[in-house]
Amino acid sequence: MSKNQHDTTQDKPWGGRFSESTDAFVEEFTASIRFDQRLYKHDIQGSRAHARMLGKAGILNTSEVEQILSGLDEIEQTIENGGLEWNVTLEDVHMNIEARLTDKIGIAGKKLHTGRSRNDQVATDVRLWLREQVDGVSHELRRLQCALVDLAGREADTILPGFTHLQVAQPITFGHHMLAWFEMLQRDYERLQDCRKRINVMPLGAAALAGTTYPIDRNYTAELLGFDRPARNSLDAVSDRDFAIEFNAAASLIMMHLSRFSEELILWTSAQFDFIRLPDRFCTGSSIMPQKKNPDVPELVRGKSGRVFGHLISLLTLMKGQPLAYNKDNQEDKEPLFDTVDTLLGSLRAFADMMPHIQPKAERMRQAAMQGFSTATDLADYLVRKGLPFRDAHEVVGKAVALGVETGRDLSEMRLEELQAFSGAIHADVFAVLTLEGSVAARNHLGGTAPEQVRKQIQIARELLGQ
Amino acid sequence: MSKNQHDTTQDKPWGGRFSESTDAFVEEFTASIRFDQRLYKHDIQGSRAHARMLGKAGILNTSEVEQILSGLDEIEQTIENGGLEWNVTLEDVHMNIEARLTDKIGIAGKKLHTGRSRNDQVATDVRLWLREQVDGVSHELRRLQCALVDLAGREADTILPGFTHLQVAQPITFGHHMLAWFEMLQRDYERLQDCRKRINVMPLGAAALAGTTYPIDRNYTAELLGFDRPARNSLDAVSDRDFAIEFNAAASLIMMHLSRFSEELILWTSAQFDFIRLPDRFCTGSSIMPQKKNPDVPELVRGKSGRVFGHLISLLTLMKGQPLAYNKDNQEDKEPLFDTVDTLLGSLRAFADMMPHIQPKAERMRQAAMQGFSTATDLADYLVRKGLPFRDAHEVVGKAVALGVETGRDLSEMRLEELQAFSGAIHADVFAVLTLEGSVAARNHLGGTAPEQVRKQIQIARELLGQ
Amino acid sequence: MSKNQHDTTQDKPWGGRFSESTDAFVEEFTASIRFDQRLYKHDIQGSRAHARMLGKAGILNTSEVEQILSGLDEIEQTIENGGLEWNVTLEDVHMNIEARLTDKIGIAGKKLHTGRSRNDQVATDVRLWLREQVDGVSHELRRLQCALVDLAGREADTILPGFTHLQVAQPITFGHHMLAWFEMLQRDYERLQDCRKRINVMPLGAAALAGTTYPIDRNYTAELLGFDRPARNSLDAVSDRDFAIEFNAAASLIMMHLSRFSEELILWTSAQFDFIRLPDRFCTGSSIMPQKKNPDVPELVRGKSGRVFGHLISLLTLMKGQPLAYNKDNQEDKEPLFDTVDTLLGSLRAFADMMPHIQPKAERMRQAAMQGFSTATDLADYLVRKGLPFRDAHEVVGKAVALGVETGRDLSEMRLEELQAFSGAIHADVFAVLTLEGSVAARNHLGGTAPEQVRKQIQIARELLGQ
Amino acid sequence: MSKNQHDTTQDKPWGGRFSESTDAFVEEFTASIRFDQRLYKHDIQGSRAHARMLGKAGILNTSEVEQILSGLDEIEQTIENGGLEWNVTLEDVHMNIEARLTDKIGIAGKKLHTGRSRNDQVATDVRLWLREQVDGVSHELRRLQCALVDLAGREADTILPGFTHLQVAQPITFGHHMLAWFEMLQRDYERLQDCRKRINVMPLGAAALAGTTYPIDRNYTAELLGFDRPARNSLDAVSDRDFAIEFNAAASLIMMHLSRFSEELILWTSAQFDFIRLPDRFCTGSSIMPQKKNPDVPELVRGKSGRVFGHLISLLTLMKGQPLAYNKDNQEDKEPLFDTVDTLLGSLRAFADMMPHIQPKAERMRQAAMQGFSTATDLADYLVRKGLPFRDAHEVVGKAVALGVETGRDLSEMRLEELQAFSGAIHADVFAVLTLEGSVAARNHLGGTAPEQVRKQIQIARELLGQ
Repeated sequence: MSKNQHDTTQDKPWGGRFSESTDAFVEEFTASIRFDQRLYKHDIQGSRAHARMLGKAGILNTSEVEQILSGLDEIEQTIENGGLEWNVTLEDVHMNIEARLTDKIGIAGKKLHTGRSRNDQVATDVRLWLREQVDGVSHELRRLQCALVDLAGREADTILPGFTHLQVAQPITFGHHMLAWFEMLQRDYERLQDCRKRINVMPLGAAALAGTTYPIDRNYTAELLGFDRPARNSLDAVSDRDFAIEFNAAASLIMMHLSRFSEELILWTSAQFDFIRLPDRFCTGSSIMPQKKNPDVPELVRGKSGRVFGHLISLLTLMKGQPLAYNKDNQEDKEPLFDTVDTLLGSLRAFADMMPHIQPKAERMRQAAMQGFSTATDLADYLVRKGLPFRDAHEVVGKAVALGVETGRDLSEMRLEELQAFSGAIHADVFAVLTLEGSVAARNHLGGTAPEQVRKQIQIARELLGQ
Repeated sequence: MSKNQHDTTQDKPWGGRFSESTDAFVEEFTASIRFDQRLYKHDIQGSRAHARMLGKAGILNTSEVEQILSGLDEIEQTIENGGLEWNVTLEDVHMNIEARLTDKIGIAGKKLHTGRSRNDQVATDVRLWLREQVDGVSHELRRLQCALVDLAGREADTILPGFTHLQVAQPITFGHHMLAWFEMLQRDYERLQDCRKRINVMPLGAAALAGTTYPIDRNYTAELLGFDRPARNSLDAVSDRDFAIEFNAAASLIMMHLSRFSEELILWTSAQFDFIRLPDRFCTGSSIMPQKKNPDVPELVRGKSGRVFGHLISLLTLMKGQPLAYNKDNQEDKEPLFDTVDTLLGSLRAFADMMPHIQPKAERMRQAAMQGFSTATDLADYLVRKGLPFRDAHEVVGKAVALGVETGRDLSEMRLEELQAFSGAIHADVFAVLTLEGSVAARNHLGGTAPEQVRKQIQIARELLGQ
Repeated sequence: MSKNQHDTTQDKPWGGRFSESTDAFVEEFTASIRFDQRLYKHDIQGSRAHARMLGKAGILNTSEVEQILSGLDEIEQTIENGGLEWNVTLEDVHMNIEARLTDKIGIAGKKLHTGRSRNDQVATDVRLWLREQVDGVSHELRRLQCALVDLAGREADTILPGFTHLQVAQPITFGHHMLAWFEMLQRDYERLQDCRKRINVMPLGAAALAGTTYPIDRNYTAELLGFDRPARNSLDAVSDRDFAIEFNAAASLIMMHLSRFSEELILWTSAQFDFIRLPDRFCTGSSIMPQKKNPDVPELVRGKSGRVFGHLISLLTLMKGQPLAYNKDNQEDKEPLFDTVDTLLGSLRAFADMMPHIQPKAERMRQAAMQGFSTATDLADYLVRKGLPFRDAHEVVGKAVALGVETGRDLSEMRLEELQAFSGAIHADVFAVLTLEGSVAARNHLGGTAPEQVRKQIQIARELLGQ
Repeated sequence: MSKNQHDTTQDKPWGGRFSESTDAFVEEFTASIRFDQRLYKHDIQGSRAHARMLGKAGILNTSEVEQILSGLDEIEQTIENGGLEWNVTLEDVHMNIEARLTDKIGIAGKKLHTGRSRNDQVATDVRLWLREQVDGVSHELRRLQCALVDLAGREADTILPGFTHLQVAQPITFGHHMLAWFEMLQRDYERLQDCRKRINVMPLGAAALAGTTYPIDRNYTAELLGFDRPARNSLDAVSDRDFAIEFNAAASLIMMHLSRFSEELILWTSAQFDFIRLPDRFCTGSSIMPQKKNPDVPELVRGKSGRVFGHLISLLTLMKGQPLAYNKDNQEDKEPLFDTVDTLLGSLRAFADMMPHIQPKAERMRQAAMQGFSTATDLADYLVRKGLPFRDAHEVVGKAVALGVETGRDLSEMRLEELQAFSGAIHADVFAVLTLEGSVAARNHLGGTAPEQVRKQIQIARELLGQ
C-alpha cells in the first residue's frame, strides 16, 4: 500500500489485529453491500427489536434504547429518500447502517451490536425478508387461482380435445382443464405455507456461533419480530440456510407449473391449434416480420423456469461442503434467492394479469375434438357394458379406428353395419356415446371431466380460496 | 419385419390399430419393465383395491372379484419366489401382471382394467411405493437423531473449538455440536411429514386423463388403500409428479446435511485435527499404502449428495416442458426417484449405525480450543460489562491478540499488566473469563453452548423423538 | 464381530493394520463391484500393458510376465462366459481380477500390482472405457447425420412454414430444416473429438498419488495402450475427473439437441400440425384408448435429456469440494457416467434408426405455409427495393396484415388496389414475391433457405461426413 | 388503455398490426434493455460491419453508409459518456441504438436494418462479446498459471505430506503440488480455445430465420468482424446457443478447480494444518471475534462455484424444449452468461493476485509429513526389491504400522530388530528409504514428485506458457 492510500482496514469493524489494508479489488470482491442493501428495512426492523430487548434485559439503559430507535427511524427515512450512500469499505448493509447510527448518535450506536454478531444478524434479516416475500408470492398465487376458477366457471361446458402424448385422446371440458392448473397452484400454495413455518424461526441471539455471555431474552425478541420461536441451537442458527433452499425448491415447482401452462398457451395460440386468443397487450411483434404477434409472456416465463432451477442447484452446492458453523461461502446465498423471488413474482403477476383476458375459441376446439377418434374409449366402454371384457373391447375398437384412418372418417361417421362388422354387440344406441357431449357428460364422478363435476369442483375451489 | 419374426405388437394391450410390429430395439428402449418391476407389490395392492371397488360398484360380480383377488395373491407369491419371468414385450409391470392374471383366471382377468388406465395406475403405484419409502426414511432419520442425542448426553461438558471460516472462533461443547446436527435432521423429519401429505392423494379413477364412464367409487378405493382422499382433477392426477420432486428436494436437503456431517467427520479424523476416532469397521484401507485407514463412509456419503441433487434436476427438467396430460416422458420419473431413495436409505443407515461408535478425543479437542485465542470474545464482553461500548472493546482485544500472535501466547498466558496496557478497565478477575469452562458456561441462554443449556435441549429433543 | 463370523478384512488388500472386520452393510455400501465390473475388459487391457512394461523395465522377469498375460487371457474368457462370480468382499473389479489371477498363477499374480495403485489403475480403466464409448457415440452421431443429409436431399424443394415463437414466420424448405439439425450434430461431433484429446492421457504410473519408486517406463505403457501421452503430474493424474465432466457436458448438449428434435417431431405428428408420419414401429399405443398412436421414441428421448443434465450436476458437485489427491468420493464418478453413455447411445441409435423412415406430408406443410402471412417480409423487402426505408415498409405491411386478419385473407389474396391503398409503391409485380416458391428461392445466399443453397450445403455436409 | 395514456406500441419496431398498447408491466417484464445494454459496443461493432457490407453490395449508397458510420461513432461516444438514456419502450439495446441513429441521421438510419433481423443481430452481438471475454478469461488463467509455476520453482524441494482421503499418504514436494493445479488450469485453457472456435462463427445474415432476399455478402461481413466463417444454416444460426452452454461448462470446470484450490487453502490456513500464511490483505476479520483472520477470498470463490453450475443448468434447461427457430425464451440466455463471466473473471483475478503472496511454512509441513507413517509405502517397495511379492510386502508393513500406532512411533523410530521381527528381508539399509528426502527423491520418473522431476515439469510448463 502506498503511503498516500487511506488504510481502509481501520474503518472496518474488525481492523484491530490487522497490519495491512485490504486489497482494493479484494474489498470489492468480498463486500456484499452491492446486493444486500436490499435488506435494509429488515435489518433495521431486527435492530429495533434487538435494542428493545437489550433495554428490557437491562443491558442498555432507556435513553440508549431511545436514541437507537430514533436514530434507526431517521436512517430508514434517509435510505428511503435515497440519501444514504452505501460504502463498500463498510462491506455490508449491517455495518453501513451501524456506522451511520454511530455517526448520528455516538456511543449508544456502538452498543447496539452487544450480544449479537453479523452471523445471526444476517440470518435474521434474510428470514424476515423472505417471510414477507412468501406472503407476496402467496398473494399472487391466489390471484391467479381466482382467475382460473372464474374462467373455469365461464367455460364449464366448453369442449376441447384432451391430449396425451400430444395426440387427441378424449374430449374434455375447458373448465376441467383450467381446474387442473388450479390444483397445481393449490399444492404450491400449501407447500409455501409449510415452508413458511420453517422460515419463521429466529436465529438472533446465536451471536457468532455459540450464543453470548449477556443475559439476553430471545423469546422477547422473537415475539417483537413475529417469529414463532427462537432457534434451539446457536451453531445451527447461524449456519442454517435450509429455509432458503426449501423456498427455492417450492419456487422451482411453481415455475415448472408456469412453464407447463406456458407450453400449452404457446401451442394454443399457434395457427395450427388456434384454441385461444391472447390480448395484444400481452404480446409483442417482430422487427422484421410485420405479421407476427408473438406470445412473449408465456415464452419468457417458460424460459425463466431454468433460471430458478439453476438457483436451486447453486444453493444446494453452496451448502453441501461447509463444516459448521458460519463460512464466508454463505454470503452467496442472497443473489440466487433475490433473483428467484423476483422471477417468481414477475412471472406470477404476468400470468395473474393475463389469464382473465384469454379468449377461448370454442368452435376451433370443438372441431379439433371431432378429429382423432376422441370418443374411441367411449365405444370400448359401450362394448364392455354390452358384456365384452375390456381387453377384447379395446381390440374391436382398434380395428374400427384402423378403418377410420384408412377411409378418413370418424367413428361417428360410420354406418351401423360397418361398426357391427367389428362386433355384433353394437346397436343403434351406439351413436349417443359417440357424441362429444355424451362423452364428457358420462365422466361424471369425483374428478371427472363432466360439466356437473366441474361445477362441483369450482365450489370446492372457492372454499379453498376462502371465497 | 421378416416373415419369420413374431409380430410382438399383437401381444400388446394396444395392438388393434397397428399394422407394423414394434422395432426390437425400440421395444427395449421404450419398455420400463427393467426398472418398474420393483413396483410389483404396490401394483398388486392397487389392483386388489380396484377390483374390490369394481365389485362394490356392481361393475364386476362377486365371483370375478374373488378370482382376481386370489389370482393376484398367487402372482405376488410367484414374484416373491422369483418365479415370474418379466417379458419386455409386455412393456411394463402392469401389463406383465395383468397378462399373467389373464393366463391364470381367463376372462375375469381381462376385466380388471375396466375403469382405469395405465396412466392413473402407475401414478397410484408410485405414490403407494413412495409413501412406504418416506416412512422408511423417517425411521432411519429418527434412529440417527437418537444416536446424536445419546452422544450429546454423554458429551455435554466436553469442550472443543467452535469454528467459523474453519478458524478457531469460540469454545463450544461437543454435546452442543451434536445437537446442531439433530436440529437439521429434525427439520428434515418435519419436511418429510409435510411432503407425505401431498404424496398420499389417490390418482386412481382418473383413467387415461378424463375419468371414466363407469360408476366408480373413488372414495372407497382411497379408503382401501389408505389414501387421505382421491385427487380432485383427473387431468392433474395423471400428469402430476410434484410429489416425487418435492420428495427429491427434501432428500437433497437431507443429503446436503449428511454431506456437511461427513465433511466434519473427515476433518475430525485427519491427523491434523484428530478430534475423534472412527471404528475400524466403518473404514477401509489402501491397496498400496499399508498405514492408511480411510474414512470411507463419510467420504462416500459426501460424494453421493451430488447424485441426489442431480436427480432433482432431472425430475424438474423432465416435467417443465410437458403440456397436459400424460406424456411418455413421465416414464423417466422412476429411475431417479428409485436411486434417490436407495442412496438416502443407505446413507442414513450407514450414519445411524456409525454415530453411536464414534469416539471423541476430549484431550485433543481441548488443546485445539486453547489455541487460536478462542476466548477473545469473552474478553471483549468483559470490557463491555466494565463500561466500554462493544465496538471499542472489540478494538482493544484486537490489539491484544496482535501481541499474542507476535509473541506466540494465548490471552490467558499474558500478564495482567500487559493486558492493562490495552485498557485500564481490565482487572484480575479477567482471568476467570479467559478459561474454556468459564467461556462455555457463560453462554447460558436458550440455544447457547453452556452444558446446562445442552442438557435442557436434550430434554426437548427427547420429547420431539417421543422418548 | 462374533467368533464364528469370518473376518473378511483379512481377505482385503489392506487388511494388515486393521483389528476389526468391516461391517457387513458397510462392506456392501462401500464396494463398487456391483457397477465397476463393467470395466473388466479395460482393467485387463491396462494390466496387460502394465505387466509388459514391468517386464521391459526388468521389474518382472519374462516368465512372470507370461504367466500374468496368459492368466489374464483366461480370466477375460471366464468373465465373458459368465463364469466369474464377483465377490463384494474384494470390493472392486481390480481386486476381483487380481485375486483370481493369484489363485490361478500364484506368486507372479501378487507381483502385478508393483508400481501401481488402485488410484491410477481405476483412472486408467475409466479413460480406456470412455475413449471407446466416445468412438461409439461418434459413430451413431455420424449415422444420424447421414440420415439427415439424405432426407434433406430428398426434400430440398419441399416447402413448410418456418416458425419463430411457434408462430408462422416465413416459408422455408424441409431440406433446409433438416440441415439445421445436421449443423447441431456437427458441432457435437467436433466437440467430442476435442474432448477425446483430453480423455486420451494416461494416469498409470501415478501410483497412489506421488509416483512410484520403481524404474517404470510410462511412455512405453502409454504407447501400448494407445494413449497420446502419460499425465504430467501424479497428484493431478489420480484426482482428475475433468474428462468425465467434459464428456458429460458434451453429452448434455447432444441430448439438448435431441430434445429439440423431439419437441418438433412431437408437434409435427400431432393432428394439429400433421406435417410428418412416423412409422408404426417407432410408436406405441394406449392400454385404454384404442385409437392412439403415440410418438414414444421422441417423447422418451425428450424425457431422457434431464437425466443427462442431472448427471452433469452430480459430477460437478462430486468434484468441487475435494482437496487433493484421491478421495473415496471419486468412486461416485462411474454410475452417472455409465448412465450418460447408455442414455446417449440409446437415444442416438433410436433417432438414427427412425429418421430415414419419417414421411413428410408436403401438402399439409404447404397449406400451413399459406396461412399466417408467411410472405409478409417479402412484401416489406419488395417495398424497400421500391425505395422505402425498411422501417417504413415494415409499417405499411403491418397495416396490410391487419386488414388481412380482419377479412380473413392472405396478402396474396388481396386485390392490387387494396394493396396500393397502403402504399403507392406497390405494382402488379408484387404477386410474384408473395408466392411460397418465390419467397424461398429469393433467400439465395450462403446459409439461406433457397433450394439451390440447400443443395450446396448438402455437398459441404457430405464432405464433412467424408462421403 | 386510458385516452390520455400514450400508446407506446406505436413507438415499437413492430407496431403496425397491433390494435392495443402493451401493458406497462408486460413491457417492463419482457424488455431486455436493463441487462442487454451491456452489449452496446458489440452491437455497434456489428452494425458498422453490416452497413459497410450493405454499401459494398450496393444495397446502401456511399453517403448512407458514411452517415450511418459517423452516427454510430457519435452514439458510441454518447453511451460511453453516460449520455444515452435507455428507453424500456424500445425494448432492447438494438432498438435503442437504431432509434437514436434515426433521430440523428434520419432516413439512412431506417435503412440500417435492411437484410437483418434482431434474431441474427443479437446472436452476433453475444458472440462478439463472448469472444472478447474468452480472451480476458484466458489472460487471467495464464496469469494464475505463471504464479503457480513461479511458486513451484521456489518450493521444488519443500516437503509436505500428500493426502488421500485427507489422511497422510506419502511425502510429496510443494512444487509438485502447485504443478497439479497448473495442469488443471492448462486443460481449462485448452478447453477455452476449443470453445472459442465454436463461438467464432457468424450468425449475421440469417435474418429472422430463413436468410434474406437482399444480395448480402456474408463472407465480407465475417471478415470485417474477425469471424472464422459465416454460419452455414440460417435456422440454426438464430437459434443456436451451444456456444454459450459450452462456455458455461468450461467455466464450471474452472470454478470447480478454483473451489478445490480454495478447499485446500482453507484447510492449510486453519490452525490445525497451518501449512501456509495468507497475506492480511486477502483476508477479513470478524465483527465480534477480535482474533479472527478469515480466508475470505478462497471461501467466497468456493461459494461462487455453485453459482456457475446453476447457470449451466439454467442454460441447458432454457434450450432443451424449444422447437426451431428463435423463441422469446432465448432472451434468458444473457443474464446467466453475464454473471458466469463476471464470477469467473473476479475469481481468477483474486487468485492470480493472491497466489504470488502465499507463504508456505516449510517446518510445519515437514512435521506433518513425519506423522502418519508417510513412508510406509517406501518400506513395502523396499521389501519388494528384496524379493517379496507386493501383496506380501504390503501385509508385513501393515503389521509394522499397527505396532507403530500402538506404541506411538513412526517406522523410522523403530529399532532394526523390531522391524526384522516382521520380515527377515529387512536390513540396516532400510532406514535410508524411511526418510522424507529419500522417499520423494525415489519417485523420479515422468510425473513423479521428486524435485528433479518437478524442475523438468517446470521447464515444460514454461514452454506451454510461451515463456
